[in-house]
Amino acid sequence: MAVSLAPTPASAMVSAASLLERYQAVRQQTARLCQPLLPEDTVVQPMIDVSPPKWHLAHTTWFFETMLLREYQPDYSVFHPDYAYLFNSYYNSLGSRVNRADRGTLSRPALADVYRYRAYVDEHMQRLLGRAAELPESFATVCELGLQHEQQHQELLVTDIKYILSTSPLTPAYLPAPTTPPATQPAPPAAWLTVPGGVYRIGYEGDGFCFDNEQAPHETYVADFELQNRLVTNGEFLQFVEAGGYHDFRYWLGEGWDLVQREHWQAPLYWMQKEGTWFRFTHHGLQPVNMAAPVTHISFYEADAYANWAGLRLPTEQEWEIAARRFNPDTSEGTFVESELYDPQPLAPDADPTQCHQLLGDCWEWTYSAYHAYPGYERAAGPLGEYNGKFMINQLVLRGGSCATPESHIRPTYRNFFHADKRWQFTGIRLAR
Amino acid sequence: MAVSLAPTPASAMVSAASLLERYQAVRQQTARLCQPLLPEDTVVQPMIDVSPPKWHLAHTTWFFETMLLREYQPDYSVFHPDYAYLFNSYYNSLGSRVNRADRGTLSRPALADVYRYRAYVDEHMQRLLGRAAELPESFATVCELGLQHEQQHQELLVTDIKYILSTSPLTPAYLPAPTTPPATQPAPPAAWLTVPGGVYRIGYEGDGFCFDNEQAPHETYVADFELQNRLVTNGEFLQFVEAGGYHDFRYWLGEGWDLVQREHWQAPLYWMQKEGTWFRFTHHGLQPVNMAAPVTHISFYEADAYANWAGLRLPTEQEWEIAARRFNPDTSEGTFVESELYDPQPLAPDADPTQCHQLLGDCWEWTYSAYHAYPGYERAAGPLGEYNGKFMINQLVLRGGSCATPESHIRPTYRNFFHADKRWQFTGIRLAR
Amino acid sequence: MAVSLAPTPASAMVSAASLLERYQAVRQQTARLCQPLLPEDTVVQPMIDVSPPKWHLAHTTWFFETMLLREYQPDYSVFHPDYAYLFNSYYNSLGSRVNRADRGTLSRPALADVYRYRAYVDEHMQRLLGRAAELPESFATVCELGLQHEQQHQELLVTDIKYILSTSPLTPAYLPAPTTPPATQPAPPAAWLTVPGGVYRIGYEGDGFCFDNEQAPHETYVADFELQNRLVTNGEFLQFVEAGGYHDFRYWLGEGWDLVQREHWQAPLYWMQKEGTWFRFTHHGLQPVNMAAPVTHISFYEADAYANWAGLRLPTEQEWEIAARRFNPDTSEGTFVESELYDPQPLAPDADPTQCHQLLGDCWEWTYSAYHAYPGYERAAGPLGEYNGKFMINQLVLRGGSCATPESHIRPTYRNFFHADKRWQFTGIRLAR
Amino acid sequence: MAVSLAPTPASAMVSAASLLERYQAVRQQTARLCQPLLPEDTVVQPMIDVSPPKWHLAHTTWFFETMLLREYQPDYSVFHPDYAYLFNSYYNSLGSRVNRADRGTLSRPALADVYRYRAYVDEHMQRLLGRAAELPESFATVCELGLQHEQQHQELLVTDIKYILSTSPLTPAYLPAPTTPPATQPAPPAAWLTVPGGVYRIGYEGDGFCFDNEQAPHETYVADFELQNRLVTNGEFLQFVEAGGYHDFRYWLGEGWDLVQREHWQAPLYWMQKEGTWFRFTHHGLQPVNMAAPVTHISFYEADAYANWAGLRLPTEQEWEIAARRFNPDTSEGTFVESELYDPQPLAPDADPTQCHQLLGDCWEWTYSAYHAYPGYERAAGPLGEYNGKFMINQLVLRGGSCATPESHIRPTYRNFFHADKRWQFTGIRLAR
Repeated sequence: MAVSLAPTPASAMVSAASLLERYQAVRQQTARLCQPLLPEDTVVQPMIDVSPPKWHLAHTTWFFETMLLREYQPDYSVFHPDYAYLFNSYYNSLGSRVNRADRGTLSRPALADVYRYRAYVDEHMQRLLGRAAELPESFATVCELGLQHEQQHQELLVTDIKYILSTSPLTPAYLPAPTTPPATQPAPPAAWLTVPGGVYRIGYEGDGFCFDNEQAPHETYVADFELQNRLVTNGEFLQFVEAGGYHDFRYWLGEGWDLVQREHWQAPLYWMQKEGTWFRFTHHGLQPVNMAAPVTHISFYEADAYANWAGLRLPTEQEWEIAARRFNPDTSEGTFVESELYDPQPLAPDADPTQCHQLLGDCWEWTYSAYHAYPGYERAAGPLGEYNGKFMINQLVLRGGSCATPESHIRPTYRNFFHADKRWQFTGIRLAR
Repeated sequence: MAVSLAPTPASAMVSAASLLERYQAVRQQTARLCQPLLPEDTVVQPMIDVSPPKWHLAHTTWFFETMLLREYQPDYSVFHPDYAYLFNSYYNSLGSRVNRADRGTLSRPALADVYRYRAYVDEHMQRLLGRAAELPESFATVCELGLQHEQQHQELLVTDIKYILSTSPLTPAYLPAPTTPPATQPAPPAAWLTVPGGVYRIGYEGDGFCFDNEQAPHETYVADFELQNRLVTNGEFLQFVEAGGYHDFRYWLGEGWDLVQREHWQAPLYWMQKEGTWFRFTHHGLQPVNMAAPVTHISFYEADAYANWAGLRLPTEQEWEIAARRFNPDTSEGTFVESELYDPQPLAPDADPTQCHQLLGDCWEWTYSAYHAYPGYERAAGPLGEYNGKFMINQLVLRGGSCATPESHIRPTYRNFFHADKRWQFTGIRLAR
Repeated sequence: MAVSLAPTPASAMVSAASLLERYQAVRQQTARLCQPLLPEDTVVQPMIDVSPPKWHLAHTTWFFETMLLREYQPDYSVFHPDYAYLFNSYYNSLGSRVNRADRGTLSRPALADVYRYRAYVDEHMQRLLGRAAELPESFATVCELGLQHEQQHQELLVTDIKYILSTSPLTPAYLPAPTTPPATQPAPPAAWLTVPGGVYRIGYEGDGFCFDNEQAPHETYVADFELQNRLVTNGEFLQFVEAGGYHDFRYWLGEGWDLVQREHWQAPLYWMQKEGTWFRFTHHGLQPVNMAAPVTHISFYEADAYANWAGLRLPTEQEWEIAARRFNPDTSEGTFVESELYDPQPLAPDADPTQCHQLLGDCWEWTYSAYHAYPGYERAAGPLGEYNGKFMINQLVLRGGSCATPESHIRPTYRNFFHADKRWQFTGIRLAR
Repeated sequence: MAVSLAPTPASAMVSAASLLERYQAVRQQTARLCQPLLPEDTVVQPMIDVSPPKWHLAHTTWFFETMLLREYQPDYSVFHPDYAYLFNSYYNSLGSRVNRADRGTLSRPALADVYRYRAYVDEHMQRLLGRAAELPESFATVCELGLQHEQQHQELLVTDIKYILSTSPLTPAYLPAPTTPPATQPAPPAAWLTVPGGVYRIGYEGDGFCFDNEQAPHETYVADFELQNRLVTNGEFLQFVEAGGYHDFRYWLGEGWDLVQREHWQAPLYWMQKEGTWFRFTHHGLQPVNMAAPVTHISFYEADAYANWAGLRLPTEQEWEIAARRFNPDTSEGTFVESELYDPQPLAPDADPTQCHQLLGDCWEWTYSAYHAYPGYERAAGPLGEYNGKFMINQLVLRGGSCATPESHIRPTYRNFFHADKRWQFTGIRLAR
């Protein structure tokens, strides 16, 4: 996910003790995600959107060093003077940096040095967190932001690792496949849920953490609409593939059609056909496509083409949020990174057809909304405010989190965003009409 | 302008006689625009967005041949079997075609052959229009569409010709400069007009012609907002230039900032500084910048950066249309192609500060709205319906027409669209807050 | 041909009268070659190697203006101050210039202006030539160079015009096809001519004009070798095509094989198959391939692959020149531009098998020699000397002239040069072993 | 070095025992070179010419598996069925393969797996070598070729590792710098050695191993020439830099000049200036430039420009070989990979001025000769013969080996070859006139 940063509302203040605990938990989770990797896996960058895991490990650490240690610990001495150049992502206000496309050309610093960097920063951060009560309120605010930022990179780690391992013809597994085979019961039919039109209020208004792009809360008008109560499945999407959907320009946006032809797309990312059977590359190696599970790793173009083929459409982000609030999802049903399943899961055959399922977790859902500023949105001053605004062009909003998202990281107002051609995230489709 | 096509509502039907008259007027205007050109000028394509004038002359003709003569005149024999391949723009359903980037590599057919093609099609069309009463209603509908389509290409001709002539260091004039120098009185200060928030209805609902992307009419909610009563001037924009606006990343969207640096943009397109004075290339050759006139030939990125620098913002297309309807513009005040001025004009110093000026004509106004389908939008079947939908991604809506737009072609619901980096159209800025 | 320039040996001095006569003849021939073109044809640049004919007309004129009028006529006033920027080809010492790839984006100056430029310079040049006797010897030397330079551009005009007209699907003819169909007698079998090995002297030594790259004359050693007495024919090359030569990597140089696959080459440039018959685009439009005529419009890669397939090889330039001198060719037998045939011609069936044919004219013959400086080669000082040396890398030598070469322009020591991938010149194959 | 392969002449046969010994020595040396690397260093590919060390380790192994074990051991079972796809370099006859540019995107197989692959193949090879006496003569021939091939990759390993480590701003050292600082005595002045002209015989004729491109031996004629008795030093080259050599087009070949401007070259590769002092990145980290040592890491364009600036020239490969034979170099004086210095060394101040120094080892010497086939050269059949011929275009010959070359690998007839723009090898300059 393109990482967005914003000052936490003051109301998000938590006690110093719980912040320290949370710091430790989040930081350990990042290392835990990298634990199954070889040093070799942590260096490469097979496409520009993917960053080497070593880079994620260091960049998230650089954030704490730059935004907190250098700001709030007067005698802090940086771990290495060149690391700011190496591990700044895109902050113009923080100086020059390695070109994004060149992240995979750097074998050094070694993985072990990056872990030393993490330990060094963690030690200093924990000391600083120990006396957080003496620090200005902004310290806790930015610290929470650093943790949310690291959680965003955890999601990227999961999807980048998948892409990295997928490029080898050896189809190596990140983790061994579960011993119990996935259930193969068909998904229950999709049901339509109705939402009456009117003026609704959307955007974040609570007293927890949110990113600046979720604000200001504001009114919006929608007409009556209906939404499907589950995600589109692999089995449904396969019908589109088999009906020649990838070969019929009529379903596609123009720029999408050019891309499909240029890249010879025939199916979602990671799909391949072997002797008549469809397989997908997964975190557990090559696996047969589970027809009941939600389709994922599709671009906006494919989501939109599928909807056109089906005579339906994608929801707007306003519709999605209104429906999400109405059907009051909690995260108890969804698949998140903590499950270690690393794949969206089929809806139970006996799921309640009057409820809306899979809203949080499983797949990020492409909406038919450009990623623009909400009315009343304001860029903060300084490096932290540099960043959300500058991505608000040529991208689309996705909602709901995925099986790679930390459960504590998602909420119905969360706005993720990607360019229409991206497929390496766990992206999926929910239909509207 | 990227050309969008849609079936005319049946209510747009005009009498056969007036349609014939209109056909002749529109077709003659296209030739009239090309009259000052040399054959050499009609062939080149100095950048991919620009088409050679010869191509415009033929493509608009191909539209009538393909959509009308071949459909409604059973014994029609095409002028030349290869012209469909040469002059199809982007209609996948109508077969393969010359790559857009290669339009400027074709010296043949000769300009004279293209005029013969126009005469041949005009003769057949006029004969067919003479018996329009016997033809199905769809004939008049599609004919009107063909004329609107040709008017869109007239605007492109004006801007493409400007770009073509600009690439030569000789700065040749399309037309001699007017003998009376432009008035140099300063523009009146911009005044703020207030629009109260609420649910409004937008989109085309009349009984005249509209494009399909102006429909379906629908409700939308806006909060209270204010709009400036005139366009931003060259003088105002120059302050941004002189304040270092093109060198400060903080005002720019990320993709815009990359572009500014890669292309070394320092000012609007066509501006150049000579011994301390700013000049602009115009249809009348190189001319000093008139500080009271609206700034034009700027990308969305520049419009947005200017607004950020000024601490303001661009209006959404909903806001623009609501304001436009409220202030009830007619076209009597604006500058259109018929004026043969080919440049947006300064607002009169005594213009009424309580009215909204320059809404129609002068400059297309960038809005902060992605070009997406309206709720209820439907693609038509067949080639005519292929086209609007497929451009609804990664572009922004512009409103209001320009000094290159035919006066009869514009209306407050009209949605033009371009990518955020485009500058060769007469694009400008109106501020909101 | 990439144009090379060098001071003429003083011995090439001709009388002022004959120089004037020659000036007029060469200049008129350039205009004569452009006479069948439309203004539209003179502007476009369908690939980077091709220059618009308008550019050739002006560039050759700029040469006389820059190298002679500005140097030898003290009060000379340039025709237009921007033309030096527009029509300098690649002379770094003469200032900045239009990018080569952008020559086809300039519609102005108009063709008529370029002819006015020619007339202006011709008038001044003729006046200057009228008093050449009073001028330093270098005047006549550089004037002769300017004429040779213009002849080189005449050859480029012929091949560039062919390429320009070929890009249109209309396959327009530069000139009407001859009314008498070409003879279709088969070519006589190729015979081998033997040349004994030893130390030979090559390079230009006469008292006429030569380019600097033909010098210094020097000794070279060759082993015994044999050369075919005629060029490879279309019929022979077609056997290679039909044997799958374009699909078998074994015959190809690595960089050539990559190119063949990337560009999907299946046959020489300008060939196309229609209902089982091979046609070629020619100056007379689309014509059936004459199997007895020499194959042409092939790259070095194709020439080399053909030779490998045939179990033979291409001659070196040393071998070619030694053979050419031994068999004492004159130009009486060859096809040159003056024939207005614009295609290499079949060898007469009764041609003497003990003689070497088609050495001068018809096709430039690819040699297996890199274009490097001869021993003792010296760059001249100033702009005229800037140029031959700088092309002496990554190109191959071609010998013998072609059907687009002026007859008075060629000689056995003449070294033409192109990159291995170029095909738009009249290039052919002579085999050795 | 682009690796060339050719059948060894039968005369190169060595006893089975010594071949086994040699096999073990060469294979161990490859692993030894990689020993200082981290796994991270073995994966990346910072430019297309560089291969990841892991790839070199595997590719050289694949050669033995494919050319020997699969051919001569009937029951041989390949280590892994996908490795042929992963580790084939460019052999079309051996099937499809990973794109060269994508070698650095593959984290798997792991480095440990590649070492397992090496052990597996070594075990089988040693068993096979144990019974070499029973095998056809071709076995020993191809085995020797495999070892020579591996030595070529050892040289590439040394230079690729240098490039890989150089891309990090941390300037990590491959090995610790020697504790004794390099001598800083100036180099002795270059002396000219004279070689009389005449017909000489060049090319390999002995009974040891050679590559096919060193044959056939043949006569060649050279005129009298002189050669400098040592390589150009850093101090001499610095004069060119300081004289503005990189900013004056007059010294450069056209394609070289374009490159210098596009890439902003200012000095040899790996040079950087810090507070007025020149440093070079080396295998021992960043070190001051030793002015007495030979200049290295320069392209042909720089070598040629330097020679032009000095009013001299580069020797041809014929001149180089004739001189090398005349001055009868042995390898005792040169710097080779076994020295573990990884840098060309200054000539001793008291070196004999009548002798020719640094001919073998230290730096590959750019010659002014295109890499073409010798007269009588023949491609072998099958994969082994596929390869030398196909590189014989657009490259230049280098002679003499370098400080990264195994001492047993070089000889005066050895022809190395690179494109004119390459700088990451240990390339240097010897002047002629």
